[in-house]
Amino acid sequence: MKRHRTRPPRERNVGRESNAAVIYGWHSAIAALQNPRRRIAKVLATRNALARLAEFGIANLPQPADPREIDRLTGPDAVHQGLAILADPLPEQSLEDLSDAKLVVVLDQVTDPHNVGAVLRSAAAFGAGGLVLTERHGPAESGVLAKAASGALEYVPLVRVTNLARALDQLGEMGFLRLGLDSEHADSIEAVEPGGKVAIVLGAEGKGLRRLTREKCDRLVRIDVPGPIGSLNVSNAAALALYVLSRARK
Amino acid sequence: MKRHRTRPPRERNVGRESNAAVIYGWHSAIAALQNPRRRIAKVLATRNALARLAEFGIANLPQPADPREIDRLTGPDAVHQGLAILADPLPEQSLEDLSDAKLVVVLDQVTDPHNVGAVLRSAAAFGAGGLVLTERHGPAESGVLAKAASGALEYVPLVRVTNLARALDQLGEMGFLRLGLDSEHADSIEAVEPGGKVAIVLGAEGKGLRRLTREKCDRLVRIDVPGPIGSLNVSNAAALALYVLSRARK
Repeated sequence: MKRHRTRPPRERNVGRESNAAVIYGWHSAIAALQNPRRRIAKVLATRNALARLAEFGIANLPQPADPREIDRLTGPDAVHQGLAILADPLPEQSLEDLSDAKLVVVLDQVTDPHNVGAVLRSAAAFGAGGLVLTERHGPAESGVLAKAASGALEYVPLVRVTNLARALDQLGEMGFLRLGLDSEHADSIEAVEPGGKVAIVLGAEGKGLRRLTREKCDRLVRIDVPGPIGSLNVSNAAALALYVLSRARK
Repeated sequence: MKRHRTRPPRERNVGRESNAAVIYGWHSAIAALQNPRRRIAKVLATRNALARLAEFGIANLPQPADPREIDRLTGPDAVHQGLAILADPLPEQSLEDLSDAKLVVVLDQVTDPHNVGAVLRSAAAFGAGGLVLTERHGPAESGVLAKAASGALEYVPLVRVTNLARALDQLGEMGFLRLGLDSEHADSIEAVEPGGKVAIVLGAEGKGLRRLTREKCDRLVRIDVPGPIGSLNVSNAAALALYVLSRARK
């Protein structure tokens, strides 16, 4: 079969490169393109998206892509807004890389990539210095996570750990106050005086924090809610905790 | 074809009844079962889920269902946790029904059912008296919305309007201070003194509030975020606004 001349052979393998990250949607893709630490393998953009990219001063733009070509890279359900890039994942980070952070978020078995991405976005909004998580996401989930993070993937270091109890020990040794969020607990997060470094620890929907995770926390606190439903979506709980703690620091 | 005796004929049509709502997942389904205003047409529960329902004092329980039977009702991607119900939708609400509310949330063209459901959940957590929205969701989306709302659908009246500008006029006549959230705006939400009734108005991801929606607001405010990303996910922004306003009322 003869290949079309404008499409070089290696593009046929796009998306099959095992380590490549697919990042789509305007905010996520442009943040990646503006991140000097990202090595970009490929940009797929519609004519409209190319015009907007040029306005942002992005150089070395490709020929316009057909929306269906982008669909093939991102999957048909992805809202890519005419822009997708294929990039090398950012370098793996370790807990040591968070030593200068004042505030980090720790997620205990939170798997939903929409939630993890939204937490990352709020972490970036409140200037948190890292997100520690126990889950590894596959390529499709990573795309959803990057989209929900709305560019925050480029700002907040992600640290994936296999043993969260050990990671919490290490965060303690690094001087972090480990603050577990638990809707059943009596103490309000508003009573915390966050003088030093804080790690906010949140559990998955329904399950909450695992027993060992709770035991590794220095304090367990809840977010006061006056209404008939006492528990919040994990990303909303993270946003409120980040807000309350960054406000208390001021 | 002979039908199995334990399955009455009408169950064959389950899910095809045009108005029926499918509500799945533990929190959403049990809240619906405990809501006296819900007319329940059918309960599908695995043996484990039935045992938990019995602990909650739910009467008239059916025979155990096979998880695949539940999959067929909810769709294969739904995390139903072994429990799904088919119920009549709650009666349609109008703006007049919100006359006793102190705090309501208004969404301008927010379509994603995950986001709408999460906003509804936070609205219930903070005791808001209603959610006004411009979008109608199809049956599959309504299931996602109900799941993300985690039971809040039973507590917070949903009012769907076709003309939001007119709805905002009406809310103004009803005495609500219409507070539009706009990340570009200079005034902080913390400066608001919410003495009376407040309607928090939020726009869709990326697009924000439409011009006419902004014009109908009494005040535009932003949520202060110190980090490199200035805009929040709509449900996180709603949770923060609800928190700040309910705290200011205290």
